[in-house]
Amino acid sequence: MKNRKKWYLKCFAIMLVFLIACKTNDSEKELVKPALPNIIIVFADDLGYGDISAFGSPTIHTPNLDELAHEGQKWTNFYVAASVCTPSRAALLTGRYPIRSGMCSDGRRVLFPDSKGGLPQNEITIAEQCKAMGYVTSAIGKWHLGHRAQFLPTNHGFDSYFGIPYSNDMNKVEVEGLTREERFFSPKSEYFNVPLLRDTKEIERPVDQTTITKRYNEEAVKFIKENKAHPFFLYLAHSLPHVPLFASKEFNGSSKRGLYGDVVEEIDYGMGEIMEALKETGLDQNTLIVFTSDNGPWVSFKSHSGSAGPLKEGKFTTWEGGVRVPAIFWWPDKIEPALVTDIGSTLDVFTTVSNIVGANLPEDRQIDGLDLSPVLLEGKRSPREDMLFYRNTTVYAARKGAFKLHYITRPVRGEKTIHDTPLLFNVDEDPNERYNIAEQYPNVIEEIHRIVEDHKGTIVPVKDQLKDRISIKK
Amino acid sequence: MKNRKKWYLKCFAIMLVFLIACKTNDSEKELVKPALPNIIIVFADDLGYGDISAFGSPTIHTPNLDELAHEGQKWTNFYVAASVCTPSRAALLTGRYPIRSGMCSDGRRVLFPDSKGGLPQNEITIAEQCKAMGYVTSAIGKWHLGHRAQFLPTNHGFDSYFGIPYSNDMNKVEVEGLTREERFFSPKSEYFNVPLLRDTKEIERPVDQTTITKRYNEEAVKFIKENKAHPFFLYLAHSLPHVPLFASKEFNGSSKRGLYGDVVEEIDYGMGEIMEALKETGLDQNTLIVFTSDNGPWVSFKSHSGSAGPLKEGKFTTWEGGVRVPAIFWWPDKIEPALVTDIGSTLDVFTTVSNIVGANLPEDRQIDGLDLSPVLLEGKRSPREDMLFYRNTTVYAARKGAFKLHYITRPVRGEKTIHDTPLLFNVDEDPNERYNIAEQYPNVIEEIHRIVEDHKGTIVPVKDQLKDRISIKK
Repeated sequence: MKNRKKWYLKCFAIMLVFLIACKTNDSEKELVKPALPNIIIVFADDLGYGDISAFGSPTIHTPNLDELAHEGQKWTNFYVAASVCTPSRAALLTGRYPIRSGMCSDGRRVLFPDSKGGLPQNEITIAEQCKAMGYVTSAIGKWHLGHRAQFLPTNHGFDSYFGIPYSNDMNKVEVEGLTREERFFSPKSEYFNVPLLRDTKEIERPVDQTTITKRYNEEAVKFIKENKAHPFFLYLAHSLPHVPLFASKEFNGSSKRGLYGDVVEEIDYGMGEIMEALKETGLDQNTLIVFTSDNGPWVSFKSHSGSAGPLKEGKFTTWEGGVRVPAIFWWPDKIEPALVTDIGSTLDVFTTVSNIVGANLPEDRQIDGLDLSPVLLEGKRSPREDMLFYRNTTVYAARKGAFKLHYITRPVRGEKTIHDTPLLFNVDEDPNERYNIAEQYPNVIEEIHRIVEDHKGTIVPVKDQLKDRISIKK
Repeated sequence: MKNRKKWYLKCFAIMLVFLIACKTNDSEKELVKPALPNIIIVFADDLGYGDISAFGSPTIHTPNLDELAHEGQKWTNFYVAASVCTPSRAALLTGRYPIRSGMCSDGRRVLFPDSKGGLPQNEITIAEQCKAMGYVTSAIGKWHLGHRAQFLPTNHGFDSYFGIPYSNDMNKVEVEGLTREERFFSPKSEYFNVPLLRDTKEIERPVDQTTITKRYNEEAVKFIKENKAHPFFLYLAHSLPHVPLFASKEFNGSSKRGLYGDVVEEIDYGMGEIMEALKETGLDQNTLIVFTSDNGPWVSFKSHSGSAGPLKEGKFTTWEGGVRVPAIFWWPDKIEPALVTDIGSTLDVFTTVSNIVGANLPEDRQIDGLDLSPVLLEGKRSPREDMLFYRNTTVYAARKGAFKLHYITRPVRGEKTIHDTPLLFNVDEDPNERYNIAEQYPNVIEEIHRIVEDHKGTIVPVKDQLKDRISIKK
């Protein structure tokens, strides 16, 4: 009897210890509940669909981006909302077709050093969405959304900024006897009087472009290390491989693809340094990296231009080579490796990040971005079924499912053609847009046409931000 | 004193035990010395450079091939010796430019059902090299090196054969009212009176093409499982994705790339089954898999054709799209993962496999293949620095290092152009062969010209195997 009592007591004691252990474990679990994830967007400039090894480049070696693509989701039908810098960047940061913010124009394609305008103050950027949730935010690299003080990153939700305010080929310096050929194919930093800013202050001019990628990467690593205790949003917008091309000494000749390949390999190397910094700080499991490009390759620059791989044409155009870009989403703790062939867009980054960080979506305006987080986190189908392709302020083309309709086409060099019967391609089967199948699918044409008309009905005229120049008259 | 003696004795005893242990270990090592590796060559038909995800296809999903590419070496500058079936296959199996075996002709591009010739008996195939070292050998799939008994695989070093003797679009059956369009874009097996052979015996005619890829894969898996105790050489030459396209029921509609994508995905699935079989039998660490294609895509068949990705043109031509193919070498125990941008060729498979299995290279003939095993096993530079590109019996183009020279060009459809000053491209920087740089590099032209002339000096005229037809007169 005594023994049995002892045995019960023993059992009771063991259960108690077990329960306490479980409880402790639970509260430990609560303690290690992941903090809000860090968000890093790496945006390359004029990098073509086919310019990293994971997307089929035969000679550019990008082991770090390939690793991201292998461990994360590689999106092969991912679009920008415009195939030139300024409007494409506006769309990425606001989740809105640039026509809604006035960041596209029939006057000028992008902002120039003498431009007066910029991203309007009432536009809401991803940085502002993150800031509202307590994130530390930083922009590093090319801005190109207005270089007058009120338009700079620090007035658009970024705590800090380091970079160049517009394209690296602007403010061309008159050099006697210098041909256009020499300026671009044997470039020197001093041929382009481009400033480097820290926040709103000019700290170097002309910026030494040979070390620019290296310095962006260093700034990015420094930012990550300094902010390991806070959730952060980092927007790293490389100013390269936009022409003129520059690689640092260590990367000159690193690739078989000439200077263009060297430049991309230096960007890839920086990606590796960022991943290393995330590992060192223990943030790698809880950081979402989005890698993509602002538009397709600028093919007029021959071997100094990238490659759209299997796609047609490049930058400026609404052919696939202009608007479809490589895209990778990486977040080891949350994203299962996958090849995603559904449609996505840079427009969707705003909405997706907002949802991931828990920020409310603005309700006072049309947001075109869709939430891709069900694809990223649960492997579901993409909510995006259509995409419109603007050139300046006009819808030239639109995609619905596998089908893409062209109302107007215009090559990089040449005049535009308005198609009385629009061209129709199945871009899933025919990504090179070779085989017009308009005759076979009148209903598809009708359906896409309705989508375009519905979209047009939502457009409210706003001030054109690109056409006005700063008056230089006294 | 006594204690010290004891101590010495102890030490001696320990050393003795240690030495015996080492010795035992050594002999154990000898016992587990790996057996000769198994060799598997998987050869796709008309698969383009850009048709698997690892090489940039946006819509064809090939997870198994991608895994091979990720774990093994992905070769991005890998060439066939001819951009049509018969000569390309002759080159792969013999390591010799087809001009040396008579397997190319100015009469007919390939062998047809009424052809008399085939791979001459005195040619030495990879299968014969392996057989000499005690390998079990099997050919599965399309042969196309002669369909008369003396030319079949079982008379060229293969212990067994299961497959179709020539292309799957041959022996077209006259069907009243059937247009060429319908025959190829809504194909049925009965439109093509192609036989299926087991060894030398016809076992089915017309072959049911809808299940052909599946059956090849099943045969391959069966062969592997049956021969797990012997070193084996398996040559799996899929008859697809050559037109007419057929996928089995399970793969119809599997991809977004239409029937072409479905077919490639079924080939990829088979690759997965083969890898599974290797794992099950424990052979996966000691098997070399080589995956490649016989030539570029047959672009005239529109969406039923593959894609050369970033490369120009396709099958029949000596542009990169015709002759550069995706290539993967996988051997977990021996090959470190890498992207190889050096030049390689199907010509080199003969020599490389011969060296790996320990077979002597024939000394009585010119072998054009080079030994790639230092690249595969030690990560060294490729020994191949040049490559000649024949169309039929004429050298149309040649590559040395990054440079490719075209003497003659001819598109898939259209006439040939003989270039008085040859065209010169840097195909590392400009894989799409857009920017002729002949004027800038006269020395390179001179150097490549010498290589071509030296090569021509080694050619000994042999009987043309493709031009003769079986007489059908009584």
